[in-house]
Amino acid sequence: MGFREHLQEVCRSVDGSIACTLMGMDGIEVDTHVQAEGGIDVPSLLVELTGVLRNARDAAEAHQAGGVSEFSVATDRLVTLGRVVSPDYFMVVALRPDANQGKARYLLRVAAPKVVAEL
Amino acid sequence: MGFREHLQEVCRSVDGSIACTLMGMDGIEVDTHVQAEGGIDVPSLLVELTGVLRNARDAAEAHQAGGVSEFSVATDRLVTLGRVVSPDYFMVVALRPDANQGKARYLLRVAAPKVVAEL
Repeated sequence: MGFREHLQEVCRSVDGSIACTLMGMDGIEVDTHVQAEGGIDVPSLLVELTGVLRNARDAAEAHQAGGVSEFSVATDRLVTLGRVVSPDYFMVVALRPDANQGKARYLLRVAAPKVVAEL
Repeated sequence: MGFREHLQEVCRSVDGSIACTLMGMDGIEVDTHVQAEGGIDVPSLLVELTGVLRNARDAAEAHQAGGVSEFSVATDRLVTLGRVVSPDYFMVVALRPDANQGKARYLLRVAAPKVVAEL
């Protein structure tokens, strides 16, 4: 199973998934599975959210709060859930607001070690 | 009931709460209730997370994803959950990682209109 299959697996298992991406902390995408069109340029948005994640990580480290493991941002049209899988990579799933966020979060947690094993 | 009481109410109702804050988008704190010492300078961390939230909001707006309504950042030692209550203000609760995040999220949602009514 390659990266793409793990990303696909997350999307297939959550109704309302839009896309799932494996991304470097530098904002460069490793692989993306697009499940549905959300009327939003999700890949570009995810690149910008990488900057948001880096800021959160720097803020947490500066205040001895430890490393960032998960993050989420919910907007009117989209929920993005992210999970850091290694110091250099993270996975993000973009969902419609009515999707099951708990299940998506669980699936990211399950997929993370499998993705790490292939990095 | 003033701001402080609403912030206290959120903390009291969730085991593992560290603090709850009402903050301006400019990073200036309106009021904070500290429930427990977490060994972390939570108020300073929350000020920095304001910058993270502003970045997320700008990214979402730039990509037509709508306004940010909620966000969360989980680290090894702390989970912060935020809810935008008006264009200029948001509430954040800081929790221990083992706290009930779902309940905290629900309580922020319930408290938000009450806080707005007093702004």
